Amino acid sequence: MTSTNNVLRQIDGKIHQTSMPNASLKPNQVRVKITHSGFCGTDHTYMPYGIALGHEGVGTVEEVGSSVTDLNVGDRVGGGYYRGSCGKCKYCTTGRESWCYTRDMYGESNTDNGTLSDHFIAEETYLYKIPDNMPSEEAAPLQCAGATVYKALVDHIRSGDRVGIQGIGGLGHLAIQFAAKLGATVVVLSTTRSKEQEAKDFGAHEFYLMDEVEKLSAPIDLLILTGSRFPDFERFFKKEILSRNATIVPISGDMNQMVLPMPSTLFNGYNISPSLVADRKTHRDMLNFAAVHQIHPVIEQFPLTVEGLTEAVKKMESGHLRYRAVLAN
Amino acid sequence: MTSTNNVLRQIDGKIHQTSMPNASLKPNQVRVKITHSGFCGTDHTYMPYGIALGHEGVGTVEEVGSSVTDLNVGDRVGGGYYRGSCGKCKYCTTGRESWCYTRDMYGESNTDNGTLSDHFIAEETYLYKIPDNMPSEEAAPLQCAGATVYKALVDHIRSGDRVGIQGIGGLGHLAIQFAAKLGATVVVLSTTRSKEQEAKDFGAHEFYLMDEVEKLSAPIDLLILTGSRFPDFERFFKKEILSRNATIVPISGDMNQMVLPMPSTLFNGYNISPSLVADRKTHRDMLNFAAVHQIHPVIEQFPLTVEGLTEAVKKMESGHLRYRAVLAN
Repeated sequence: MTSTNNVLRQIDGKIHQTSMPNASLKPNQVRVKITHSGFCGTDHTYMPYGIALGHEGVGTVEEVGSSVTDLNVGDRVGGGYYRGSCGKCKYCTTGRESWCYTRDMYGESNTDNGTLSDHFIAEETYLYKIPDNMPSEEAAPLQCAGATVYKALVDHIRSGDRVGIQGIGGLGHLAIQFAAKLGATVVVLSTTRSKEQEAKDFGAHEFYLMDEVEKLSAPIDLLILTGSRFPDFERFFKKEILSRNATIVPISGDMNQMVLPMPSTLFNGYNISPSLVADRKTHRDMLNFAAVHQIHPVIEQFPLTVEGLTEAVKKMESGHLRYRAVLAN
Repeated sequence: MTSTNNVLRQIDGKIHQTSMPNASLKPNQVRVKITHSGFCGTDHTYMPYGIALGHEGVGTVEEVGSSVTDLNVGDRVGGGYYRGSCGKCKYCTTGRESWCYTRDMYGESNTDNGTLSDHFIAEETYLYKIPDNMPSEEAAPLQCAGATVYKALVDHIRSGDRVGIQGIGGLGHLAIQFAAKLGATVVVLSTTRSKEQEAKDFGAHEFYLMDEVEKLSAPIDLLILTGSRFPDFERFFKKEILSRNATIVPISGDMNQMVLPMPSTLFNGYNISPSLVADRKTHRDMLNFAAVHQIHPVIEQFPLTVEGLTEAVKKMESGHLRYRAVLAN
């Protein structure tokens, strides 16, 4: 291990590499030598703040803290969005550690620790062994996008549900695959007719444009919102489109506000249940599920360099990225 | 039994009594001779539509349909908001019959069947025996207000929760009592300082004005909204005021829209889970709970006549009703 860490971040509107000494590990922490990292819409949102970018990392363990018991040097692991939590509060002790008030979360704390870098540090329990048959470049986008959509689904899905996936992008193309393999009837809602075949190849059973939801063959029971804008809830909040007592899970969307029409929200009993990446148990389950059920992120690969990230940013901004950028060292 | 039913409704802006023949019973239906009925804010909302008013009825069984097995003539029963459902759909077979697409619900179907009347009809399973020690005038407001707040609480409460009750009115004064007896730490949020002592007498442990929520001793885990307007969510959606992953249950509020601020809704994981009166199992539980734990609605009594209802409407509109109107035959 070198004593220096090179990280990628934006400075004055451009991607730069900055170097800093490697931090020493706390007893429960692990240092990972990054081989692959996704570049996600959330990274793009945080670029102007100059933080060390990246939260979908895969690599090999290169150093373990003194109390680490379950990971060894050389293990292939992933992680990146959550990097630690107190382990003691009501959230940490009930499988809801994502909400721990002292969570160490990408973009919220420790802004020099990213996965678009040489080295990355997380607590032992926030790193996940990658199944042997899963390529690292496919494992990377699962660390945020995969974990996010899987949790949104498994927390709410009931047998027989018609699951709506709004948006076919970095999140949506994985949500369709997971939902289909979880046994749901998958209904994709998109603004782009040309994505219909691709959605069906991912496992969608039905496809509708957002402005033809009145044509739905039956209402949706669980709606996962992965688009960058919310749907017109006034139009959606009808029992012919969303089943009564349906749950809507925003995992992305308009970052200004969400306007729910009343009294239709109340009289149809629509639940809004936001979800933010995944707790550790669900994250582990997701990796196993993806390996067993052959979930494959569609990726475009770039070198993990200033030039590579600059190129990935440009591709994302053009709207033509299909569907996740992965940078490799 | 007379063959005529007299019902109260609004015609041309005034309360009138209209008479019609008593409908014949379907095999699974029961006719109740009303002795008491609440008059609720929802009745007030529906007055302009001219429907037979009332959905918090108590009385005695006077006729049972041919397939009724569990109720007998003379039984003292209550009910009124839901009066039937298909019994077969995914909602009816999973304890979520409130959302049945063919539910027979006050204000939505059968608008000649109200409890502010001589006779009222419901399916057998939508009528509830009143515990022996519960006076009929107290049982009446429990059929809607009591069932509504009890379900909102028991569906979401966790041990150790700090439960916020917004509003001290017909719903709120019961929500405080139920929440306290359910073992929660009860935090009341009101616009009226003069209600503090009363809130504490109902069982509240803490009391804050809506515009001093920053003074909360600790954040709220479950927030029941019973007021006629929603709180300023921008101000409430902070982890110091509402715990991360808190659930907000609107059972009343602004009937135009609900505006959730983003990204605080997403990053704190706030769930919105509307609730509408109660399923039958929860309704039965509520009556037993109220009897055992001595929940007492605060009521003002009026005669079940045109004059009595006119008076009750006036009192409600003045804002001085404390807290539920009950009309007695």
